[in-house]
Parts: sequence; structure tokens; C-alpha cells
Amino acid sequence: MNERILEGTDHLGIKRFFRLDDAAYDDGALSGDTKELLGLVASAVLRCNDCIDYHLQQCVDAGWSDEELLDALNVALVVGGSIVIPHLRHAVETIDLLRSREQAER
Amino acid sequence: MNERILEGTDHLGIKRFFRLDDAAYDDGALSGDTKELLGLVASAVLRCNDCIDYHLQQCVDAGWSDEELLDALNVALVVGGSIVIPHLRHAVETIDLLRSREQAER
Amino acid sequence: MNERILEGTDHLGIKRFFRLDDAAYDDGALSGDTKELLGLVASAVLRCNDCIDYHLQQCVDAGWSDEELLDALNVALVVGGSIVIPHLRHAVETIDLLRSREQAER
Amino acid sequence: MNERILEGTDHLGIKRFFRLDDAAYDDGALSGDTKELLGLVASAVLRCNDCIDYHLQQCVDAGWSDEELLDALNVALVVGGSIVIPHLRHAVETIDLLRSREQAER
Amino acid sequence: MNERILEGTDHLGIKRFFRLDDAAYDDGALSGDTKELLGLVASAVLRCNDCIDYHLQQCVDAGWSDEELLDALNVALVVGGSIVIPHLRHAVETIDLLRSREQAER
Amino acid sequence: MNERILEGTDHLGIKRFFRLDDAAYDDGALSGDTKELLGLVASAVLRCNDCIDYHLQQCVDAGWSDEELLDALNVALVVGGSIVIPHLRHAVETIDLLRSREQAER
Repeated sequence: MNERILEGTDHLGIKRFFRLDDAAYDDGALSGDTKELLGLVASAVLRCNDCIDYHLQQCVDAGWSDEELLDALNVALVVGGSIVIPHLRHAVETIDLLRSREQAER
Repeated sequence: MNERILEGTDHLGIKRFFRLDDAAYDDGALSGDTKELLGLVASAVLRCNDCIDYHLQQCVDAGWSDEELLDALNVALVVGGSIVIPHLRHAVETIDLLRSREQAER
Repeated sequence: MNERILEGTDHLGIKRFFRLDDAAYDDGALSGDTKELLGLVASAVLRCNDCIDYHLQQCVDAGWSDEELLDALNVALVVGGSIVIPHLRHAVETIDLLRSREQAER
Repeated sequence: MNERILEGTDHLGIKRFFRLDDAAYDDGALSGDTKELLGLVASAVLRCNDCIDYHLQQCVDAGWSDEELLDALNVALVVGGSIVIPHLRHAVETIDLLRSREQAER
Repeated sequence: MNERILEGTDHLGIKRFFRLDDAAYDDGALSGDTKELLGLVASAVLRCNDCIDYHLQQCVDAGWSDEELLDALNVALVVGGSIVIPHLRHAVETIDLLRSREQAER
Repeated sequence: MNERILEGTDHLGIKRFFRLDDAAYDDGALSGDTKELLGLVASAVLRCNDCIDYHLQQCVDAGWSDEELLDALNVALVVGGSIVIPHLRHAVETIDLLRSREQAER
């Protein structure tokens, strides 16, 4: 996602932010897989579909099941309220899309 | 936290919301411990100190280490930006307080 | 709106949230009609077009006039600021659409 | 509330904003009383205690009962999620305070 | 932007808000050009693409260079966090569009 | 402000974020002074008093006058709405405090 902006700009601060953003999900005290789940919930309560899609892709790659992703999104729903519902619906559609891609690639 | 409001009110919808809120952190597809960490990050990016304190208490009870809590809060910082810093500072103070209580109880 | 997600998921917490969400707009100490207006203003200041559309439909069904809807949206505009303007524009377009449907059905 | 800032500043835009803010709650297509309730819910979902207190005072003056205020705050809770809970607790305390003042004045 | 809504409504409060909104970017203690840059950063951290586009157009008309616009957007990115990235990408695309229009008009 | 947290933690990502945050206000395509004003408005629309206080201190050090600061805050008020008013009041009090300190130091 970040690649595309980088082509159009060479602002040092922006480039460094992107590197910091990537590094935040590397294995550390917590595993990268767990941190992708944190990123998903943060994106959901802040209501950003592009960010939800990005973290869902990472979460699916990390091996989280549909049941686990919904359980995480339920936390986001309760914390963030009904205003999160359109983003929950969007997330469910993205999960379906990612799963059908997985199927096709087998 | 919810107890205190319940005393002052008997609105059925509010009571049900509190029960739903509690249930969201029960063991499910994800463990309750993992979901407390999700609740912490959601509270941090939405910048609510009372909510951060509540989830930090639950996270400490669940056995998450300081390093793991800071790694989760770092995700919140990167997702939510510098506007999260005062809440990160608050969280660090709360962690210190919870740890010194743990010490005192031994 | 909630129906569609329910088909794709059977997470108990999510289902219960949807029921709680529906119940919040039932007649109670305040009439359901008044609470739809509250839902509209909450949706507008939180800047969610899907939520605005949903509550506008309910408000039109409840018999609120265009003048009353605009008066409510004006409160949202003053509380939420110019950042609400794109959503106010969206709301005005939705009201026009709902009214022309009303006309067609007569 | 606005008075105090006005003493310290004579910025024309700010003064005009305050006048616009006051006018938004005057009787219009909707009654001023209904609009105070809208202002309360908007303040609650945007999580501003000072704004909640201001609108609660106006709502109490307008004659809304505790049951009606809680029913409005329940809409805010469902729309805005558990992150609204600390502000709901604050609101309940303010309502108690305003009611005991009412008692004392009789 | 405001023109289109005004056609569909004649709510006095809304009209006055639009006038106040326009006036906020007039030359004052700060130049109008500087205030457009402030409007851009406010729109970016509040994550409103329509508002970003509007202020980018004004900023380009005011003569701000791409480097200056990116430097302002970098402040928004650091303050608002990675959740601002999709809006930064949108802003970069809008800047490209505005610059190619400038080229075409010469 | 960041110093205090750094003492309590040595998380590499957090440290790097603080450095990036500081660097965002260095002279670049825009002057550091202008970027402090951007930081002030971003802090005001995101409604963070600690952040407002920090940037006001930097803005006063940069030589911005009261009239210029209020003109910037007026943009924040119009963009962010009446929900910003308590933070505007806070900002006016901080400006007064900073000016009286300036007086005392002469």
C-alpha cells in the first residue's frame, strides 16, 4: 500500500514513518501475528476500510481462522459501537474474498 | 466500573449493554487474555484513559509482561499517531502502579 | 442492514449486539420516533454515511418533515463543524431520494 | 460557558461561532427542548464531558425526566460503544447533582 | 462545495455556518494562504477526503509547492498516525491531478 | 514531554516514533514555526489538551502573536465545531499563562 505513495514522493519523514509502520508488526515481545490482530481491531474502531482490508490480508496470511477474526471484530464492535457496523460488514465481505482467493490458488 | 452506574440506573438497554461488554472478553475463538490486549489497543487509539486503565488491570491479571504491553501500545501509537502520546504516558504510569501493587501483595 | 452480515456469520456476541441496536430505537421513556432523530444526529457527527442513510429512512417513515430533519442536521453541523459538511450534502441527497420514492409509491 | 472565553478574546469569527452555536438550540422546525436532547447525544458520542454537562443542564431546565435522559444516553451508548461508558457514568453523576440542586432550591 | 447544498435548502443556521466557514479562511491576523494550509492539515487528521480535496485546490491556487504541501501532510501523518495513510495517498493523487490541470491550462 | 516516558521504557519502536515526531517540526520545505501552527490546529481539532499546551509553548517561542494564535484556533473551531469549545477555552488559559511567564522573565 505504502509503495504507491513512495513513488510519487521522496519526503524523508513520510518514508521513515512507513518504515516505522512496517516495523511495528514485526515479531517482538508479541508475535507479529498477534500484532496484526491488534492492527485489525485498531483499524476497525477507527473505522478505516482500507486499513481493515490491509490487516485482514495480513491476518489471513498469518493463519487466523474466520472464527478468530470475527471474535476480534466483535471486540471492535462492542468498544466502538453500532457506528462500526458498516465496517464490520465490509470486513466480512473482504474475508469472503480472501478465502475464495485462497481456494482458487490451491 | 459498570457496577457504579448500575446502582444509579435501571435502564434495561444499558444493563444489557454492560453484560454484552463483559461477555466480549470471555474465552471464545480467541482467549479472553488475547481479547483484553485487543481492548487495550482499541482504548488507546480511541484515547480513553479510564478504558486504558481498566484493560491494563485485566491484562496484568492475565499475565501479560511489561514488554508485551508496551509492544501492544506501540501498535496503538503507530496507528493512532502522536495524539496518542499523552495516553501512552498515562498507560506507563498505570502499569507502574499496578506492578507496585502486585509487589506489595506478595 | 444487519440482516446481510448475519447470513455470513453466527457469532453470538455480534447477533446480540444487533438485537440491542434494534431495541435502542423502540418506544421507551422517549418515543422511537424521537430516538431515530437522536440516531441521525449521532451518525452525522460521527460522520458515517451508511448510518445517516439508515436513520434518515427511519425518520422519514416516522413522519419527520424536511424542515425538521434539516433542523436536526443543523445541530450536528454546529456541534461537529465543517468536517460534517460532506455528510450534510449526502444527507440532503438521500432525503431527496426518499421523498421521490414516497411520491412514486402514491 | 462561552462568556468566559469572550472576555479574553475579541476574535470576530469566534464570537460569531458562539452566536451560531446558541442559535442552533432556539425553537425552530424542532423545539429547542428537542434540540437540547440532540446536543446531549452528539456530545456523548463525541465524548466531551464539558459539553455533556452543559446540555444536561439545559435538558433538565427543559423538563426532561431522568428516564428520558437515560433513554437518550442509551442511544449514545449503542451508537458510540463501550468507549462512551466513562462519559455515561459522568452524565449520571451530573444528573444526580442537578436534581439535588433542584431539590435545594424548592 | 457549499453551493450545491444551499440550492436544496434554505435553513438559516446552515447558510450562516457556510458563510462563517468561508470567512475563516479570509486574510486576518494570519494570511488566508496560511489558513488554507491549516485547513488542509485539520482535514487530513480528521480523515475527510472531500475536505482534503477542497483545501488542496485552495492551497494550489495560493501557490504552495508540492514540497510544502507534503511537509504539511507529514505533520498530519505524524499527529494522526498510520490511519491517515489512505488519505495521504488520496491527497498525493489529488495534487497530481491539480498539477496536470495547471499544465493543461497554460 | 516525551522524555518522561522514555525513562520508563526502552521500546525501540516508541523511541523511534518520538524522534520522528520531533523531526516533523524541524525546518524543511515549510519553516518549523509554520509547522508548529499546523501541529496546534491538528491538536485542537483532535481535542487533546496536553498536545495543545505543548504546541502553544512552541508557538509562543516561535514568536506567533495572540492574534495569530486565535486566528489559527478559529480555523480549528470552524472545522471541528462546538465540541472544540472546551479546548479553545483551555488554549486561551494556556496562552494567558505563557504570556505572564514571559512577562515575569523580562
